[in-house]
Amino acid sequence: MADKDLNDLFLDTLKDIYYAEKHILKALPRMAKAANSDQLRAAFEKHYDETEGQVERLEQIFELLGKPARGKKCDAIEGILDEGKEIMDEYADTAALDAGLLSAAQAVEHYEISRYGTLKAWAAKLDLPKAVKLLDQTLAEEKKTDSSLSQLAEKAVNYEAAA
Amino acid sequence: MADKDLNDLFLDTLKDIYYAEKHILKALPRMAKAANSDQLRAAFEKHYDETEGQVERLEQIFELLGKPARGKKCDAIEGILDEGKEIMDEYADTAALDAGLLSAAQAVEHYEISRYGTLKAWAAKLDLPKAVKLLDQTLAEEKKTDSSLSQLAEKAVNYEAAA
Repeated sequence: MADKDLNDLFLDTLKDIYYAEKHILKALPRMAKAANSDQLRAAFEKHYDETEGQVERLEQIFELLGKPARGKKCDAIEGILDEGKEIMDEYADTAALDAGLLSAAQAVEHYEISRYGTLKAWAAKLDLPKAVKLLDQTLAEEKKTDSSLSQLAEKAVNYEAAA
Repeated sequence: MADKDLNDLFLDTLKDIYYAEKHILKALPRMAKAANSDQLRAAFEKHYDETEGQVERLEQIFELLGKPARGKKCDAIEGILDEGKEIMDEYADTAALDAGLLSAAQAVEHYEISRYGTLKAWAAKLDLPKAVKLLDQTLAEEKKTDSSLSQLAEKAVNYEAAA
């Protein structure tokens, strides 16, 4: 077995989600601007503020590890956001746009839920209780956001079906 | 508002996940081959069989819609799988490999959970009860798989910490 271990994997994955969060911060204003419904725009704006807090938590974890906060190119989030952009382009000015935006946002949330769930489990194994707490706060926020988006999707789709 | 509506969005997203499932079918044997633990290899092999069934369900839905079963390039799954491949390369021959493979597989599961959840909600709105049933079967399988992977991750990480 070579040198790399779970500490390296934890740090690499931390860099991955740090990169992802920074890109989500760039995408959210575009998504808010595109949204037809005021409620959806407000949801994206709220999530922007939350995401800023999540970036800060990640920076605290880098600090706990004594490492510089640095991102590592995350192909996954780039693919997920590209797909969201495609939907924004293809469904611009249609009544289905909000449903598409919500679906793109939920794909982002699920990526984050998966990454934070993994990081939290690893932090526990690596005996990093402060990191566990920070990751758990973000994980809870992401799950709550996903659930709010599901509720909004019901409304958006109702609106669409009635349009 | 332009012509495109929720029917188009449903079909586009169906094509997206069809493409994704086909690519997952290609990736799973590589992941199974790479796994250090027999349990993880067995989990990937079992999920391969399940994925074949999920592809068949999607084909049934295309048939219900009277459309040819055809994929549409899914940037999201390509990014997620590329990231998994990177971990396989970077952590080859390390005790952390299985933890990395599990994390990659859970990112895939969460993408699918997000897509099938969205498609199921849309199918209900579009009054496609047969599609709802098929999508719900797959959604339940994906959630169960994600939960089994979490359990395996606990074991894999325990193994790693003790190695």
